[in-house]
Amino acid sequence: MLTVLTVGEAKEKVLTSVRLRTGEGKLPLLDSTGRVLARALVASHDLPLFNRSTMDGYAVAAVDTFGATEGMPALLEINGEVLMGQSPPAKITPGQVLRISTGGMLPEGSDAVVMVEYTEVLGDSTVAVNRSVAPGENVIVKGEDIKAGEKLLPAGHILRSQDIGALAALGYIEAIVADRPKVAIISTGDELVMPEQTPGAGQVRDINSYLLSSLVTQAGGEPTLLGIIPDNADKMLSALEKAQSFDCVILSGGSSAGARDYTAGAIDKLGKPGVLFHGVSMRPGKPLIFGVVDGKPFFGLSGNPTSAMVGFLLFIRPLLLQLAGAHETPNLLRARVERNLSSAGGREDYFRAVIYNKEGELWARPLLGQANLISTVVRGNALIRVPQNSEGAEAGDKLEVILI
Amino acid sequence: MLTVLTVGEAKEKVLTSVRLRTGEGKLPLLDSTGRVLARALVASHDLPLFNRSTMDGYAVAAVDTFGATEGMPALLEINGEVLMGQSPPAKITPGQVLRISTGGMLPEGSDAVVMVEYTEVLGDSTVAVNRSVAPGENVIVKGEDIKAGEKLLPAGHILRSQDIGALAALGYIEAIVADRPKVAIISTGDELVMPEQTPGAGQVRDINSYLLSSLVTQAGGEPTLLGIIPDNADKMLSALEKAQSFDCVILSGGSSAGARDYTAGAIDKLGKPGVLFHGVSMRPGKPLIFGVVDGKPFFGLSGNPTSAMVGFLLFIRPLLLQLAGAHETPNLLRARVERNLSSAGGREDYFRAVIYNKEGELWARPLLGQANLISTVVRGNALIRVPQNSEGAEAGDKLEVILI
Repeated sequence: MLTVLTVGEAKEKVLTSVRLRTGEGKLPLLDSTGRVLARALVASHDLPLFNRSTMDGYAVAAVDTFGATEGMPALLEINGEVLMGQSPPAKITPGQVLRISTGGMLPEGSDAVVMVEYTEVLGDSTVAVNRSVAPGENVIVKGEDIKAGEKLLPAGHILRSQDIGALAALGYIEAIVADRPKVAIISTGDELVMPEQTPGAGQVRDINSYLLSSLVTQAGGEPTLLGIIPDNADKMLSALEKAQSFDCVILSGGSSAGARDYTAGAIDKLGKPGVLFHGVSMRPGKPLIFGVVDGKPFFGLSGNPTSAMVGFLLFIRPLLLQLAGAHETPNLLRARVERNLSSAGGREDYFRAVIYNKEGELWARPLLGQANLISTVVRGNALIRVPQNSEGAEAGDKLEVILI
Repeated sequence: MLTVLTVGEAKEKVLTSVRLRTGEGKLPLLDSTGRVLARALVASHDLPLFNRSTMDGYAVAAVDTFGATEGMPALLEINGEVLMGQSPPAKITPGQVLRISTGGMLPEGSDAVVMVEYTEVLGDSTVAVNRSVAPGENVIVKGEDIKAGEKLLPAGHILRSQDIGALAALGYIEAIVADRPKVAIISTGDELVMPEQTPGAGQVRDINSYLLSSLVTQAGGEPTLLGIIPDNADKMLSALEKAQSFDCVILSGGSSAGARDYTAGAIDKLGKPGVLFHGVSMRPGKPLIFGVVDGKPFFGLSGNPTSAMVGFLLFIRPLLLQLAGAHETPNLLRARVERNLSSAGGREDYFRAVIYNKEGELWARPLLGQANLISTVVRGNALIRVPQNSEGAEAGDKLEVILI
């Protein structure tokens, strides 16, 4: 029996039906970009650890500069220099300064830095300060960047370059990250041959194993190709049994109605609860199968590359993130469509498109071509989403676009 | 002597001063996502290789269905079935059809497919067709997806998942990709200690080696950390000599004017032409040094993490792409700023910000905090660019934003 859900219902069903989470492990910090932080990053100490100068100049007590002007400079005694990476050689007493460089440690008694541009050295050990500074001026105070105990990054955060920098700043050279979900990829269909084989009459090369493997990697998963399974119930079932050790299984192919039945039948035979839905009200990619067996998710995608890609991006990518404890970030991109797009009410449509910038605004040029062509997604760089509650879009309408 | 360029001038100088290109090599297709295609992908054959059905139904000669209606169906003879992955068992002669599944090979004499929904089987070998089909209906013809000789992807293209799929479709299980540029990263400064060390008084952990390493990886390069060099002319020079075997060298640190002079001096001492500019009219990141020695690029970035990040994204990332033969894709993102931003005319300003979607529009909330704080780039997800020819922006203005 064919249960067709809306895209929203289907996504919720996928995310709420799977409670599985991957494990975690330590990784060298240099290999952690793009990985999912397994535990919140809480600062173990202040950053910086001491008051630092942000300018080259003189560490002063601000009060000693009050009222100083070019005509009436404050004359202060230079009592030495703060060397980089060292404690100040002395503390500051009234009327004294220490030379300091950007990043240098402020001496005791000093609460501001006068930029060298506003000073003039007079003789051996006197500096004329031509401008007053306020307390705190040209200084980063201890803990101003990060405070001890502050939660800088939550668990589930996907590490960016600046996060790697922050981890280093706090003394970490390893990160505890979620293991990448292990994903089995199976292509089905009597017509399929491996890409390295020369197809005979009626045969085609398996595209989806490679397409999906790349998509899985991009979504933070670890793909394993389990090869091509013919349209045969027994072989399908034994392939699924082999795939059960993975965190997620993606089948694709079975473009005909009969072949799809093999996929659904094999998932149901494998165990409980089996197939949870079979069909999503969207185009392309309507005949999408989702099932759960012993807590593990199984997807059956269309053999058409574009359909498989849309199904992956809408349902499998968010699940792979969830398996690793991360969340999808909201898609921020909207673009105006160049021409009218017609869509049947009651389903979501995804049109392949080229998006580009015109006078500071994003525009999307829809591409012709069916979902069974790989070339339209190669020529395109985005998918335009026409939502379910609309019957299309008019030229100039602003719609959500997904970069591909 | 300090030569300060505009951002545009500086970028052009960087890209035109370096002619170096990395080599190329074969990589398994499954490892090629994100890599730069070294040679154009030209289709060696048509795709599909034969006319294929896009529906389950009957392969027909369209002319045999003309005028067919539910009241007056065309009665045609079923002469067998096209099996998936095989040649059709017979050709079609007038009045005949073959059963066919989605993806099946059209028999000779057939130019369309009637969907099974519009047919009814009568007896053993007769089918009633209730609707006419046009020639070409429900069929992808040979070469409709990709034509033999067609240039599908240019050299320099960065491979996406769909491109990996297209390569598989054309029979490739390896890709010829540009070697990743090898990048040496050096941090300078007497105050720096490695992240795993506990800083003493006046010392700080080296953030930039890790931040830049991650940025290099994200830009397709292969980073190598050469460690921390103290502010010492001889040690700096010998570090640069060691780094000369790399495709690109990034120094950072030397936040004080004196330390910056060491960097520029060492590049000049290393060889010709030496430093090409020293300073870019932007904030943060003004004291950026760029030099070329024996055709190799050398960058001196500020020690402030945000400054270093801005300098990297504006100048080094495009160069790393160019070294691999790729081009930067234009940045498509624009957002409205939440509040007024003031900027001195004559320089570009990059404000750290959080961008978010409000009623289908992108907005940017600028973050407070100086360029010497790592936390503002950790809390932010974007940089707002205030162009050089403006004196700031007003709340609601739409500006370019760079995702970080």
